[in-house]
Amino acid sequence: MPISLSLNSELRPATTSGEQAVSAIAKLHDFLAEQAQATDQEGRFARESVGSLAEAGVFAATVPAELGGFGVERLHDLTVITARIARADASVAVAYYMHIALAWYFARVVRFGADNEPGYLPRREWLEAIGDRRMLLCSAVAERGADYWNLATTATASYNGWVVNGRKILASLSPAATHFYCRMKAERGEGHHLASAMIPADTPGVHVEDDWQGLGLRGSGSGSVVFSECVIPDESLLVRGPWGKRDPSMLEGRAVSGMGLNGVYLGLAEAARDHALRALTKPTANGRPRTVSSAGTKSAIAEMEIALTAARGTLGAALQDFDAYLLLNKPQVLTDDMARGMMKECQSVSLVVERAATSVIDHAMRLTGGSSYQARHPLARAYRDVRAAAFMPPYSPPEEAIDFIADTALTE
Amino acid sequence: MPISLSLNSELRPATTSGEQAVSAIAKLHDFLAEQAQATDQEGRFARESVGSLAEAGVFAATVPAELGGFGVERLHDLTVITARIARADASVAVAYYMHIALAWYFARVVRFGADNEPGYLPRREWLEAIGDRRMLLCSAVAERGADYWNLATTATASYNGWVVNGRKILASLSPAATHFYCRMKAERGEGHHLASAMIPADTPGVHVEDDWQGLGLRGSGSGSVVFSECVIPDESLLVRGPWGKRDPSMLEGRAVSGMGLNGVYLGLAEAARDHALRALTKPTANGRPRTVSSAGTKSAIAEMEIALTAARGTLGAALQDFDAYLLLNKPQVLTDDMARGMMKECQSVSLVVERAATSVIDHAMRLTGGSSYQARHPLARAYRDVRAAAFMPPYSPPEEAIDFIADTALTE
Amino acid sequence: MPISLSLNSELRPATTSGEQAVSAIAKLHDFLAEQAQATDQEGRFARESVGSLAEAGVFAATVPAELGGFGVERLHDLTVITARIARADASVAVAYYMHIALAWYFARVVRFGADNEPGYLPRREWLEAIGDRRMLLCSAVAERGADYWNLATTATASYNGWVVNGRKILASLSPAATHFYCRMKAERGEGHHLASAMIPADTPGVHVEDDWQGLGLRGSGSGSVVFSECVIPDESLLVRGPWGKRDPSMLEGRAVSGMGLNGVYLGLAEAARDHALRALTKPTANGRPRTVSSAGTKSAIAEMEIALTAARGTLGAALQDFDAYLLLNKPQVLTDDMARGMMKECQSVSLVVERAATSVIDHAMRLTGGSSYQARHPLARAYRDVRAAAFMPPYSPPEEAIDFIADTALTE
Amino acid sequence: MPISLSLNSELRPATTSGEQAVSAIAKLHDFLAEQAQATDQEGRFARESVGSLAEAGVFAATVPAELGGFGVERLHDLTVITARIARADASVAVAYYMHIALAWYFARVVRFGADNEPGYLPRREWLEAIGDRRMLLCSAVAERGADYWNLATTATASYNGWVVNGRKILASLSPAATHFYCRMKAERGEGHHLASAMIPADTPGVHVEDDWQGLGLRGSGSGSVVFSECVIPDESLLVRGPWGKRDPSMLEGRAVSGMGLNGVYLGLAEAARDHALRALTKPTANGRPRTVSSAGTKSAIAEMEIALTAARGTLGAALQDFDAYLLLNKPQVLTDDMARGMMKECQSVSLVVERAATSVIDHAMRLTGGSSYQARHPLARAYRDVRAAAFMPPYSPPEEAIDFIADTALTE
Repeated sequence: MPISLSLNSELRPATTSGEQAVSAIAKLHDFLAEQAQATDQEGRFARESVGSLAEAGVFAATVPAELGGFGVERLHDLTVITARIARADASVAVAYYMHIALAWYFARVVRFGADNEPGYLPRREWLEAIGDRRMLLCSAVAERGADYWNLATTATASYNGWVVNGRKILASLSPAATHFYCRMKAERGEGHHLASAMIPADTPGVHVEDDWQGLGLRGSGSGSVVFSECVIPDESLLVRGPWGKRDPSMLEGRAVSGMGLNGVYLGLAEAARDHALRALTKPTANGRPRTVSSAGTKSAIAEMEIALTAARGTLGAALQDFDAYLLLNKPQVLTDDMARGMMKECQSVSLVVERAATSVIDHAMRLTGGSSYQARHPLARAYRDVRAAAFMPPYSPPEEAIDFIADTALTE
Repeated sequence: MPISLSLNSELRPATTSGEQAVSAIAKLHDFLAEQAQATDQEGRFARESVGSLAEAGVFAATVPAELGGFGVERLHDLTVITARIARADASVAVAYYMHIALAWYFARVVRFGADNEPGYLPRREWLEAIGDRRMLLCSAVAERGADYWNLATTATASYNGWVVNGRKILASLSPAATHFYCRMKAERGEGHHLASAMIPADTPGVHVEDDWQGLGLRGSGSGSVVFSECVIPDESLLVRGPWGKRDPSMLEGRAVSGMGLNGVYLGLAEAARDHALRALTKPTANGRPRTVSSAGTKSAIAEMEIALTAARGTLGAALQDFDAYLLLNKPQVLTDDMARGMMKECQSVSLVVERAATSVIDHAMRLTGGSSYQARHPLARAYRDVRAAAFMPPYSPPEEAIDFIADTALTE
Repeated sequence: MPISLSLNSELRPATTSGEQAVSAIAKLHDFLAEQAQATDQEGRFARESVGSLAEAGVFAATVPAELGGFGVERLHDLTVITARIARADASVAVAYYMHIALAWYFARVVRFGADNEPGYLPRREWLEAIGDRRMLLCSAVAERGADYWNLATTATASYNGWVVNGRKILASLSPAATHFYCRMKAERGEGHHLASAMIPADTPGVHVEDDWQGLGLRGSGSGSVVFSECVIPDESLLVRGPWGKRDPSMLEGRAVSGMGLNGVYLGLAEAARDHALRALTKPTANGRPRTVSSAGTKSAIAEMEIALTAARGTLGAALQDFDAYLLLNKPQVLTDDMARGMMKECQSVSLVVERAATSVIDHAMRLTGGSSYQARHPLARAYRDVRAAAFMPPYSPPEEAIDFIADTALTE
Repeated sequence: MPISLSLNSELRPATTSGEQAVSAIAKLHDFLAEQAQATDQEGRFARESVGSLAEAGVFAATVPAELGGFGVERLHDLTVITARIARADASVAVAYYMHIALAWYFARVVRFGADNEPGYLPRREWLEAIGDRRMLLCSAVAERGADYWNLATTATASYNGWVVNGRKILASLSPAATHFYCRMKAERGEGHHLASAMIPADTPGVHVEDDWQGLGLRGSGSGSVVFSECVIPDESLLVRGPWGKRDPSMLEGRAVSGMGLNGVYLGLAEAARDHALRALTKPTANGRPRTVSSAGTKSAIAEMEIALTAARGTLGAALQDFDAYLLLNKPQVLTDDMARGMMKECQSVSLVVERAATSVIDHAMRLTGGSSYQARHPLARAYRDVRAAAFMPPYSPPEEAIDFIADTALTE
């Protein structure tokens, strides 16, 4: 049996469900990579790439097979899928992950849920819709200058249903989304709650601004979405908890979704490494074969390999930790301490992956030389894209990750 | 089910065999830690610690249960066992690993071997001897200023058998060893070969110098062993290959044994981290409770956690890679490319673990304060012990690891 | 006397000449910073900024006062001047430096030269022209895929003078240049030489492509310049040495000009640090004062300060080393060993400054938060600009700096 | 004129006074290096080394020439002198610096002081005694578990004078000291003050324990000194300020003395680098010439050079900053802000030097190979010695340096 060294080569799906998704992506790789170039340059949403992946069923990866999906259950596989998309286009990978992390969660609830539990039914319907290619989700949660537990968007009870008002930012995939998974403050009489609602894109008052102008991830469609007097049915609003409380029970969900997001940066790093090695082993412009004897060059290659080993190993092991729990337990039965532990592992792993990916891209650019400093070069794009890792951690605000890890260690 | 996060806490044995060994060590932890202090200070071999572990069966961990051992088969478990010993005494862990890596290899050969294969029989007998507590192995391979493939020790054919002459260094466990697993140049007439032999310690001409005076690992008994006109039976010499060739087929064995050695440095780092956190959370000398609010302190704690996460994750994932292969394949059926791949993964992982462990011990000392600069402080010992990682890598000479990784990457 | 701590605050000009230039820049700072925003966004040359600095005499800084300049003689002051421009716009600072490094060299030659030495006269005339604001220089040396000692641009002897053909890249300031300082292969009969010539921009056959599309430094005008059958007078070509030889005598000039270029990255880092500290100490969007208690935040601030201390100290000390020599010696009287020593110091210092500046900008972005990930944010621009440091070192190809430093150390 | 590149070679004294001291040390280098080996191994105070340096006048370096010294006034020169001693023996360098920092301060007070100012007279007499080789000073300030502003040692007013009781630790040079410069709490009736006193070693009740057992700096004599009912004359006690206040005015003195201490670590690093380069360029044990082609080796060499460049440059520039102030101003006329600024620069520079020195010694050991892991190897000693840098910073407790730098930056 040939030896298969994941740290030397790549993380692979653990299930055939995952493999199906990965091969679908492989077929689209060149198209996605080409589109990535164009959408980055023009600073526009990668609509065609999203369309092609949706058509190939990748946006339904976590939907059970009987509902039209690939039936991916493991966070490990979801992360590998995301990494493979990111090798071609990190923007699309981020947009994809924002959708699929929700779809994965719905499937998990449905898998564990008795069919009479609250939240079971709509989630099953959503999975069906995603399986039918009728639904693309946008996570409309973030707001400018607001913490996740203190949002300015409101849902006010009215005769017709809830009336939603607010402005969301960083709403990746929003230009293509059919639905917005929105968090807000629900106000009914005296009582205020943190709530969520699934708002169809064609609801009057929903306005997708498509105004994302980031340093990187330029094709991710991560602009603003405005809700102006949007009326949604009473039953479409789900109360998630008391208002204004920094609720540790939310740590689980954020730790889980944060962990998988690391696939984006792993994929970016893998593509950068491959690019640099190709550049080093192909003949030079003037036809001479490039022999590698420079100590600086070899050291940079070795450091890339070491960094990728650390990223793959740490992420792979953490995903195994998480899946061992997630495959056997339904959401939110964790104690606060356990949830903090998950978040701490998520934060630490994310920092390991971010640092490794940043280092790999740094070395890859140096190894590739001045051409990688051209605005449109794939490595110049990777350099801009990878920077997002500093601002997309699961814990908010990001600069407090250090404090969270230390405080948790001190009270373990 | 409670969540079990290995990266947040510790790597655990994957089998009950491994768990048996780990609990045996746990019972001895305090004794080992106490001895570690004394033997380090006096610069002498940790004879009592080795004795207590041998008595508890830990030196027979890889021997099949039917031959008196715990039956540990996985390199993963062997590494965890080594890490647990290292938490109390890294010197003993190194000495242990040098013995057990051989004992593990013998068991692997026996497991796969047909009983008529050359090498099967002696190895089975050795396992029995180890299971009976009659055998402690010392790997007598290294020589001053010589590469592994170009040794100065010779075995010359004579009427009575082979006559062995040479001086070996870094022979960990040598003061307690009952047998020396020795590599040498076998000379018979015109032909020269690389050979190995198992030489009993009571063979006339074997002299254990017990002269190890290292910066660290002072209790490991890693001194010199001299063979002067030692006569061994003809059949006890095994030819391993042609003489003087840098043989890639040896890479497999060295990659495998090198990988597990990382357990030593992981265990050292884990103990250092625990020490620092205890120091930070216990009351100060003058009775005031220590509150941790310093940014410098918190950052150092977080960096310790992040480093341990990377070390555990990378090592754990790599051991899984290796075991997936090792459990299903007999030794040395790998192609050269595959063997180079294993060595590359071993080197990369070892560098990740070494860097992480060094960083953890650095932070732990800072967090513990000036008291850790006392000669006999456990963290001062850890600081000296961990340094060995730079000089005990599986590839030799160590400074060429960077070159090996880069060259392998360039030809993949 | 109040204490003036350069490492805590900033490097300052050592002479009143330098101070004149620095105050001229200070007055233009806001205008330059505003223009930087616009030209970066539109990807066009910062023509207005260059114009305003030229008008203020900054492009004549090294011209002796009697010829209309500020009389800056020290490389230290030149580097500080460049850093101050870079605080507002690194693109303009690079374009400026490419011009002023030549103008500084001409002044040095003239200062030491007897007036009958070859090269004295044109250089004195050029200084006059620069002092009169009639001359802006573009260094047209680099070519795609060619080393500095093996150029594809040629000057062929003809009846009318030399005929120049070739394509130069990375010709910063080219859209505004009145003259191109060009290096080429001079071919006359059998003999080939490395030569330089000052070619007026209005020479028939000179074509400035203004096609620079870099990841950063987008306002620097660093595009291509094409010379097609440009005829220049016989006497305007200066032979610099034999053809095709990697000539160590050139190391001096490149070490000197490389050293000052570090001002660009120091200025970028200083501006980034100031931006982050302003962001941290100003009230938040919703009016709350920002108190800084996070350990992660404080550590990042401290690391910025430490990095700036290292960059300022190392660069300041090196400039003092260089000036101590340069103020007393005319060009190219160094032995090869001494020239290698200068280049080694230049390389090492440049790596210290590059790493420090990269780290400061990294921390500054984290401290400023997600807003710094907007495409047009000054810190996002700094992130792109600072990356150029990897590709603009004085030694070529850049990845060999490590080899150069090591080889020089081994033979000292 | 040959070029003199301090960052490429070494920091040199700025005055002939400094040069005198440096040549005196150069003559003793081999003797000091030999002694270093012996005293480290035996864990005893380097009495002979201190004696030889004292005899050569080096302990009187800062005493004005007319009082028998070399007249060194610059902190820069004092730091260079300390670095040169540290190249041979860091233990002696630390012991030396503890003495000379006081002697330098006394000379500074006398230089600026009118002869009728309090403190002038004794200090002048001390300088005379030091110039006459009659006085070796031990700074007896530190106590276990106590901050510098909250000491447990007391001086109680009595009929015969002050009665001193207390235990001091880390009293470097104590086994050879003729006098102890001691800080304590002075208690007279109701009033408590922070005070200092110069206590002769032959005062009844002074007990030098000579009990230093550190990880490194083993020859520095940094053990405990106990004062039991020591009676000292009334006039020998100097009141330094109110009791129990964390007094920013002390920051100046500590910043100044902390800055010069960096010479110890610079000297250690320089010696380590030289050792490694010698090892790399000398023939191997078996007579083959060592050619250096390994990328790992070359990268390590380059990183040593880069680290030394940063250490020398940053330290040299900071010393120039400090001397520019110190040569023109008498002690303690600084505002609190200015004193904080000095301390911040001292802290930042110390961290740059510590990190650089640690990195150089790390690389030097790797480059030298396994022999450097022998307990008595000079590099193994350097590895233990350099670690002291983490615990001897001017700010206390050391882990708060990060906080101090950040807090000062936030309020600048």
